[in-house]
Amino acid sequence: MENKLYLYNSLTRKKEVFEPANPPHVGMYVCGPTVYGDAHLGHARPAITFDIVFRYLKHLGYKVRYVRNITDVGHLENDADAGEDKIAKKARLEQLEPMEVAQYYTNRYHENMDSLNVLRPSIEPHASGHIIEQIEMAKKILENGFAYERNGSLYFDVAKYNEHHNYGVLSGRKLEDMLTTTRELEGQEEKNNTADFALWKKAQPEHIMRWPSPWSDGFPGWHLECSAMGTKYLGDSFDIHGGGMDLLFPHHESEIAQAVAANGKEPVKYWMHNNMITLNGQKMGKSLGNAVSLENFFKGDHKLLDQPYSPMTIRFFILQAHYRSTVDFSNEALQAAEKGMKKLFAAMSRLEKLTPSSKSDLNIREFTDKCYEAMNDDFNTPILISNLFDGVRIINSVYDKKETLTAENLELLKKTFNEFVFDILGLKDEGTSDKNQLLDELMTTILEIRRQARADKDWATSDKIRDELKNIGIVIKDTKEGVEWSIEEG
Amino acid sequence: MENKLYLYNSLTRKKEVFEPANPPHVGMYVCGPTVYGDAHLGHARPAITFDIVFRYLKHLGYKVRYVRNITDVGHLENDADAGEDKIAKKARLEQLEPMEVAQYYTNRYHENMDSLNVLRPSIEPHASGHIIEQIEMAKKILENGFAYERNGSLYFDVAKYNEHHNYGVLSGRKLEDMLTTTRELEGQEEKNNTADFALWKKAQPEHIMRWPSPWSDGFPGWHLECSAMGTKYLGDSFDIHGGGMDLLFPHHESEIAQAVAANGKEPVKYWMHNNMITLNGQKMGKSLGNAVSLENFFKGDHKLLDQPYSPMTIRFFILQAHYRSTVDFSNEALQAAEKGMKKLFAAMSRLEKLTPSSKSDLNIREFTDKCYEAMNDDFNTPILISNLFDGVRIINSVYDKKETLTAENLELLKKTFNEFVFDILGLKDEGTSDKNQLLDELMTTILEIRRQARADKDWATSDKIRDELKNIGIVIKDTKEGVEWSIEEG
Repeated sequence: MENKLYLYNSLTRKKEVFEPANPPHVGMYVCGPTVYGDAHLGHARPAITFDIVFRYLKHLGYKVRYVRNITDVGHLENDADAGEDKIAKKARLEQLEPMEVAQYYTNRYHENMDSLNVLRPSIEPHASGHIIEQIEMAKKILENGFAYERNGSLYFDVAKYNEHHNYGVLSGRKLEDMLTTTRELEGQEEKNNTADFALWKKAQPEHIMRWPSPWSDGFPGWHLECSAMGTKYLGDSFDIHGGGMDLLFPHHESEIAQAVAANGKEPVKYWMHNNMITLNGQKMGKSLGNAVSLENFFKGDHKLLDQPYSPMTIRFFILQAHYRSTVDFSNEALQAAEKGMKKLFAAMSRLEKLTPSSKSDLNIREFTDKCYEAMNDDFNTPILISNLFDGVRIINSVYDKKETLTAENLELLKKTFNEFVFDILGLKDEGTSDKNQLLDELMTTILEIRRQARADKDWATSDKIRDELKNIGIVIKDTKEGVEWSIEEG
Repeated sequence: MENKLYLYNSLTRKKEVFEPANPPHVGMYVCGPTVYGDAHLGHARPAITFDIVFRYLKHLGYKVRYVRNITDVGHLENDADAGEDKIAKKARLEQLEPMEVAQYYTNRYHENMDSLNVLRPSIEPHASGHIIEQIEMAKKILENGFAYERNGSLYFDVAKYNEHHNYGVLSGRKLEDMLTTTRELEGQEEKNNTADFALWKKAQPEHIMRWPSPWSDGFPGWHLECSAMGTKYLGDSFDIHGGGMDLLFPHHESEIAQAVAANGKEPVKYWMHNNMITLNGQKMGKSLGNAVSLENFFKGDHKLLDQPYSPMTIRFFILQAHYRSTVDFSNEALQAAEKGMKKLFAAMSRLEKLTPSSKSDLNIREFTDKCYEAMNDDFNTPILISNLFDGVRIINSVYDKKETLTAENLELLKKTFNEFVFDILGLKDEGTSDKNQLLDELMTTILEIRRQARADKDWATSDKIRDELKNIGIVIKDTKEGVEWSIEEG
């Protein structure tokens, strides 16, 4: 492909040509889950969004080191820097070791993401596993004069930082506005300024998770982990940093400030943010009573759901919207996505059966180019999917002998479908999962035909059925209760 | 079950009644993999052995916190405390970040263990994620006078420890023998004594993985991680510590010494060790050219293997030996295991079809008790499996109407088989995986019968087949090339 990849950079607020610092290497960091509860749609969207980025960059030939963290400590409950550690709280409630809770939900997160066919990142560092790196970074920030200590806790000095740099470069916020809008929080009185945030918090007696540091036994502030782990695995500055739009401020804004304060340079060239998901038009949240877990979707066991929705239906539905648009989940929309995806796979299975002709009525190269154009335009998966449905029309037209394709064009059509549907969009045909049931039904059918043949004294057919079944390893046995069948073992 | 569980304690060298310190809670630590290469049989055996312990303790009603570590740093190449960090070496060779290598092999390890139906442990801590805990433990040992510093490295003082305690309590080795038999190693000259081992090693310029410490930028000694992580998640003393017999000395011996030196008490009540695996009578090892990975076994793509062996065949084969016996892998033995397992599952599928009678000719309670007796005798899985084959004979005898069982006895027989085969031995019936192929063959059979009917102008049968197939969602289409069939989408 000659065309260049353009992506929307939240930092510059425009689409830019993607030019990594060290091609073919690309470093990408994405904020991962806080593992204190089951994954819901809000986890699925960034995972799928950046899975598409990961897959497409690899498809274009880049060697991507994709780092996605596990937040198993330090995510504080009141958005910023006060209150209780969420995981420690959960663990105490359940009378469990925090890491046992974290491990349980990490495993479930992995299972869910595997179901959604989200590729594993290259490195999946744990926040609790990088306390030293976080302390070292906090030390640097303190030494460089951008932090202060209060009663064993360490705070980032936003006002001081803003004298030299711009706290607001990413979010576009002005410091004076932040000072007036930030809510009063517990522990606030330790801070010089409401916009300041914790780099290290002294542990209160009730905190289970704690580590020694030069300032106190405590735990790192939430923003610090991504800065420390991004730097460790991708360097002081790297190509792409992704996450949900809700993380843009204060989390990503603070990451930039921390990195600049510690290392003296901007950490990230391209910032990418996926938009949010609503459910029946409402924001999702545990407190709103409409937080539907991915497991709920897969099993259909939630009052808001009419039926189960398979992982690929969820994936396909998310990809039908551009990652920078909001997505509203509803039963109707999911059922439409399910139907659309089945249509796509039905056409792909027809595609395998098409026979080539000596001439082509259609321009397949143009179709392929359009697919690349969609992805090169800031990973525009809805346009790509719409292009693929143009391809479905081509397939059906050739299948119905209305148009023809040369062998070469047919190969290109197959290659394009396979690469875009399987490799890049990461979809899978789930149709095969019902085959056990189908097998039972088919055996019922075949045994009914045999019964009829015997009733008609058509012994030839009856014996033929028995022998053919035996050949493929199925033994039938006539008993008083009827005909039993079993698959021969060994 | 009234009967007590006995297990062989490597520390006391005898079978003891299992009495955990805080029932129903049980703390168990098992040494996990070093993630710098693919998992082979040597990884499968301890994982399966302690999976059985985990499963059986849970079956008996214990609440088990099972910790199995990931060694992603600090495992030194020359057995003990000198030489290069294995992972750092591999990463440099491959021009990769060490953690990217570690993540890759961790993921593959998990996939392999999932295939073997090994349950995930409650907590899976990474050595690299617990550097602070290791430094803190090393500090305690130093403060208590059982360690000394040399050029930024810290060594455990075995001779000093032995004045008060017994370095050799687990292995039965005498210190004076160790002094003469330990080989000369690089970096040896820093140590007072050849038996001393590193708690902390100063990093050489070529070491990629390094962390700050009070003594130097470096990395922890290999033995320290298990002591630090076991203590963190299970406490100063806990119930069970497991691992391969090759880890008994120096690793586990040193773990005891470290814990006693730091905390003043023995860390573990029951030490359990699985025996080793040989391949065609030979020790396995990369240098011996006979290291066959689990992937090789599953795919059959190694010159020493006649065919692929499924994960359950490997699992069943390992369980056919007692964990304290050696196991020799060979094609013949694996094929016999495969056959035996199929026989077991064929009987279990027959068991579902047995019909109860008004009286029992057989004592099923006795059969069930024998299964428990086997497991209670130090997890004797070969005896259990042999008992289950007595059960297979019962099933076949009832199936052939030679003997009868009451409904109650039949229920107990089913319960016993399901619990011991699925829950405790962790076996799965893999027979279903061939069903796709079977479906194709069955369709070929049914379409051949239809072809014959049409040839005989038996339109009634031909139409019936078409209609019945349509009812179950299979569409057939007569074309010039023959009959095509497809599963209806949507």
